[in-house]
Amino acid sequence: MKGLFKPNLYLALVHCPVKDKNGETIASAVTNLDLHDIARAARTYGVKSYYVVTPLLDQQELVRTIIDHWVTGYGATYNPKRREALELLQVAGTIAETVDRIGNIEGTKPRLIGTSARHDSRNIGFKELRERFSDEKPYLLTLGTAWGLTAEFMEDVEYILEPVQGAGSYNHLSVRAAAAIILDRLLGRDDIS
Amino acid sequence: MKGLFKPNLYLALVHCPVKDKNGETIASAVTNLDLHDIARAARTYGVKSYYVVTPLLDQQELVRTIIDHWVTGYGATYNPKRREALELLQVAGTIAETVDRIGNIEGTKPRLIGTSARHDSRNIGFKELRERFSDEKPYLLTLGTAWGLTAEFMEDVEYILEPVQGAGSYNHLSVRAAAAIILDRLLGRDDIS
Repeated sequence: MKGLFKPNLYLALVHCPVKDKNGETIASAVTNLDLHDIARAARTYGVKSYYVVTPLLDQQELVRTIIDHWVTGYGATYNPKRREALELLQVAGTIAETVDRIGNIEGTKPRLIGTSARHDSRNIGFKELRERFSDEKPYLLTLGTAWGLTAEFMEDVEYILEPVQGAGSYNHLSVRAAAAIILDRLLGRDDIS
Repeated sequence: MKGLFKPNLYLALVHCPVKDKNGETIASAVTNLDLHDIARAARTYGVKSYYVVTPLLDQQELVRTIIDHWVTGYGATYNPKRREALELLQVAGTIAETVDRIGNIEGTKPRLIGTSARHDSRNIGFKELRERFSDEKPYLLTLGTAWGLTAEFMEDVEYILEPVQGAGSYNHLSVRAAAAIILDRLLGRDDIS
């Protein structure tokens, strides 16, 4: 059995800028289960922090209330395993702020990785990206809510991860399911029997 | 690039018999996002049908209402991709009923696969189970809600799949995330770059 893989990966769930059903740029609403499911997957796979990115102050406040409940409030004693996951959760107003905060922690800014359900000429494969992680530099994997990250956003990322492809052409996973699969492929043990 | 992998796999999300926080056997409540997220993952990976198993008649009715909305009601035209996923959804009262119904479709009963977050002396690995699928016989993968499938239930399954293991000892994925990762490992393309 090989040793554990310890990358320097951060995760961001982006609520703005994302696309709506018609391709317009919007700020989407925070979904409670996105916080829980993705925090639990992030803890499972050793992600360093999980940023929920929204410029909407009432949405930021909602996320902080949920974090407080599970990390220091009643939820922390009711379900300590949930506390361990939600401790990873951070709130940020923008991706630029997220990048700066990680830069302050790491001493160098993270490399941005975009994700999408569609193929792109710039796609990097899962195995190739996994190999890049061995440089131990910080990386920030961004996931879009609603109908996904905007084209303008994708222009600014360093890497665009190839889409999760299933058995056919259907590519409409929830962001929670896509996050879980992506973390398993990028950070999972390579000795799966 | 290798061809598509076409197994004969069915999925069941079990709400009874499962364990509660204290290990007691219960019937858990249906969670709306379990239906959507797991149906979308099932469609993505070519699962033949996704059974929601609950003996509670009001819960069965709730699931049927959700299916009707997305498959024949307003949701079907609002979001046809969601319809494609929720078309896979079936309601059943028990696992025995699920096995019988699949048996009627396939002409032979499916082999039952149990899942758990804990290791078991009977565990079969992902790659090994994937190889079994090449016999083209029907298999039924069972996922537990709440605190998981009961020990009595696990005694009756033919295979117990090894747990999804992340980077460390934390093993508290949501059933939605676990389902996505398991389907990707069992049914995903083997040419991931």
